Amino acid sequence: MVTPTAASGPETEVVNAYQRDGFYLAHGLLPESVLQELTEAVPRLLAQEGPRRILERDGVTVRSVYGPHQTNETIARFCHRSELVERAAALVGERVYIHQSKVNVKAAFVGDQWQWHQDYIYWLQDDGIRRPDLVNVAVFLDEVTEFNGPLTFVPGSHRAGVLAATPTAGMPIGYEDAPNWVSTLTAEEKYQIEPSLIADLVQSNGLVSPKGPAGSVLFFHPNILHSSAQNISPFGRSTLIVVYNATSNPATNTTNPRPEFLAARDANPVPIGG
Amino acid sequence: MVTPTAASGPETEVVNAYQRDGFYLAHGLLPESVLQELTEAVPRLLAQEGPRRILERDGVTVRSVYGPHQTNETIARFCHRSELVERAAALVGERVYIHQSKVNVKAAFVGDQWQWHQDYIYWLQDDGIRRPDLVNVAVFLDEVTEFNGPLTFVPGSHRAGVLAATPTAGMPIGYEDAPNWVSTLTAEEKYQIEPSLIADLVQSNGLVSPKGPAGSVLFFHPNILHSSAQNISPFGRSTLIVVYNATSNPATNTTNPRPEFLAARDANPVPIGG
Repeated sequence: MVTPTAASGPETEVVNAYQRDGFYLAHGLLPESVLQELTEAVPRLLAQEGPRRILERDGVTVRSVYGPHQTNETIARFCHRSELVERAAALVGERVYIHQSKVNVKAAFVGDQWQWHQDYIYWLQDDGIRRPDLVNVAVFLDEVTEFNGPLTFVPGSHRAGVLAATPTAGMPIGYEDAPNWVSTLTAEEKYQIEPSLIADLVQSNGLVSPKGPAGSVLFFHPNILHSSAQNISPFGRSTLIVVYNATSNPATNTTNPRPEFLAARDANPVPIGG
Repeated sequence: MVTPTAASGPETEVVNAYQRDGFYLAHGLLPESVLQELTEAVPRLLAQEGPRRILERDGVTVRSVYGPHQTNETIARFCHRSELVERAAALVGERVYIHQSKVNVKAAFVGDQWQWHQDYIYWLQDDGIRRPDLVNVAVFLDEVTEFNGPLTFVPGSHRAGVLAATPTAGMPIGYEDAPNWVSTLTAEEKYQIEPSLIADLVQSNGLVSPKGPAGSVLFFHPNILHSSAQNISPFGRSTLIVVYNATSNPATNTTNPRPEFLAARDANPVPIGG
């Protein structure tokens, strides 16, 4: 049962932490068997060629696979689990649908950076989603440590709203021949935030990299300012990210939409059941 | 007074830790005023154009300045301080001279990686230094945290000796027109160690990134396997590194030597006095 407004007890604490910090890390939310199923499903996903698969600048290593909940039964079932859907609903304040899903691989030794960015500006500008009432649910498929390029947040920065950002012209180096929408998925961000603005926010709010064992679940706000460094370690850092959106907040860009595997058209609530 | 063999008390502990782990981090070794003098000297060094200054791949940001003890009075005096020279002598087991010095800048937002490598192979292959009886003394000019691309060690890896490494042919991308010796100073290492060998060592020995406030002094062995990720944070991470070598272990490559600012010819012991 979805209880978006009746959160109480531990759930209230989660919502409060999320609203204050822009993120919340949950340990022990998922049964061990679920993690194992996901881990088994991922190699098949990475092996499938096609437009859903984005490579690193080296042209060899898989960087991301988009929309796996649309192609893989295990991932689809996972995205419907009540632990995720009900919490997502509590965090955005109403029932939710899946706007996007992806596996970010961050491969050992070669996984590249994600520059400083906010997620929501892409969903606003490219997909026409009018309010930042989405939530990222990131499942650690590997242990996350200080050494394997962890996500790094400026805590509380989501409360600053959409920061001024300059859209870069053209395609990033190494992706010159790719479709236009690929420019939003590479190591060089399309919407570049002024370094002095980032420095000011970090100066006042600090930095934090949530860490934990495989199976930890990180909820984070679409307006939190974040980045991650390259992974120089011999340990991979794969993450499955499911982006839930409020059902009353659908994508409105219908004239020039991104592919369905980046921006769902169907805003009907997720059925619950894992 | 140099007392290389008569180490006792806390000094013995330092030598033992260094021999076991391949590094040792000292807090509070230097007076605050010394750190301030160094910090004031660095901007002038970085502003001096010439072959001693190496830029990042972006062609704009300073990556390193070599041999500052040869051009700057403050740095020269610093390299003669007894806290450094006597400890270096204790660690290599005899009197020492300065083989090399450098400031590695690791600039905020743009400072690039150093790939996995050992230092000694360069000094062996390129300078003809026959034994790994050198020690790096790295002075943190900025606070080092998990966020600004800290040096990352495989503790104890120095005990494996010189690891098999493949020399790369040609010059790194972005440095095509530079002199040959520049290939040993960029983000792409000249001597590449097999990833599986690195993974094995990390699997058995782990990883550690020594952290601390500006003014901390990190002693590390020329054969310890290390790397550092790019610096995506708004905080710079400049380090002054002085490489002391045993006086009985001079560079023997006199037919095709690297420039004096990379490899000293004069192996006379450092006079002590800061």
